[in-house]
Amino acid sequence: MKIALLGGTGPQGRGLALRWALAGVDVVVGSRQHEKGKRIAEELVERLGDSPGKITGMSNAEAVAEADEFVVLATPFAGHQPTLESLKDGLKGKILVDVVVPLAEDNAKKFAPPPEGSATEQAQAILGDDTPVVGAVHNVSAYVLDQVDTPINCDVLICGNKKDAKDRVMPLVEKLGVKVYNAGLAVSARAIEHMTAILIRLNSSKVTPFRHAGIKIWAEDE
Amino acid sequence: MKIALLGGTGPQGRGLALRWALAGVDVVVGSRQHEKGKRIAEELVERLGDSPGKITGMSNAEAVAEADEFVVLATPFAGHQPTLESLKDGLKGKILVDVVVPLAEDNAKKFAPPPEGSATEQAQAILGDDTPVVGAVHNVSAYVLDQVDTPINCDVLICGNKKDAKDRVMPLVEKLGVKVYNAGLAVSARAIEHMTAILIRLNSSKVTPFRHAGIKIWAEDE
Repeated sequence: MKIALLGGTGPQGRGLALRWALAGVDVVVGSRQHEKGKRIAEELVERLGDSPGKITGMSNAEAVAEADEFVVLATPFAGHQPTLESLKDGLKGKILVDVVVPLAEDNAKKFAPPPEGSATEQAQAILGDDTPVVGAVHNVSAYVLDQVDTPINCDVLICGNKKDAKDRVMPLVEKLGVKVYNAGLAVSARAIEHMTAILIRLNSSKVTPFRHAGIKIWAEDE
Repeated sequence: MKIALLGGTGPQGRGLALRWALAGVDVVVGSRQHEKGKRIAEELVERLGDSPGKITGMSNAEAVAEADEFVVLATPFAGHQPTLESLKDGLKGKILVDVVVPLAEDNAKKFAPPPEGSATEQAQAILGDDTPVVGAVHNVSAYVLDQVDTPINCDVLICGNKKDAKDRVMPLVEKLGVKVYNAGLAVSARAIEHMTAILIRLNSSKVTPFRHAGIKIWAEDE
């Protein structure tokens, strides 16, 4: 399996690239500049040594072309719409896994959704019927992702309007070592993405004695 | 401490009344009809026997007058706006704890918020500056609340625009035996209330092997 990871040069993208490579997934890190993608990939390879999955780097458009099925979008929200619009044609027939959270640029504790209601819904609106969008991994902090020797101790809620695409994405996300739950249609991204802002708020609280908070789904046994 | 519990005759209200009474809080169950409130309170007292906090029942307006500080609103969403509008004057100077979640009447898996964005924000808009509103206990299922011999194994996120009101409500909610986190301003209720619809969806999933799901905040230790 070879996936593209656009915005793979940012902190969250790097952690995802490392964890997927360790799980045996080949990862093509994309960046706006081919050279930057290549350089970051080399840094990640240096950190991991000989990992089960290979990490390479190139431009976003080249990375999309390399992906056999999944393209993961992990840019800052400012790059969400322009990246998707510029890559729309190349994404046809692939599944977009959108991990972007729209936070206010001057205040990460504030959810600042686009008119569509969430990043996931915006992506689906831009890409149309040719590319199913699945929102995922919104609530796992970049710090937690980066600590690759420590299991991720929170859960992932995924959502999207195409059930078959969610069914395909679920095992990919499970490779990160997390429990994954189908949270319903893309509209659920409004709650899930928003929760990231709330978690960032908890992390910055003087009262709450922790950091890098995440969500777990608790349930009574049958 | 004596609190009013409006809509205390519904399943979530009953569980809250039982747990608060067991924790030593006097609970005045309110209903649209005085007689119904009285009857439900008698049923709850019969179930608990001699509890540390006393449960009585009366009309909503009488219950509000009895409350020394906190009025908990636990009606179905259809009763949210009319109940608040009819009790607005009596609520002045008290703190409203809003546990109502706006779900579609024909589909509890669908979040159906009012124009204000959430029930908590709608309540604050109706009540104005004289009554601070704190959203709380949205994600704990009525079934879990009702199993009073079993600790509630999920967390509670509270939100509201008045910090001092949240600081007052936090220990009240902690009496239910849960961890309580300040999730920020009332706008956070959009995510927290919406999560209830997602949890109900998980509970009805053929894939997810559990029921009565809740949320826990996980965090790395310092």
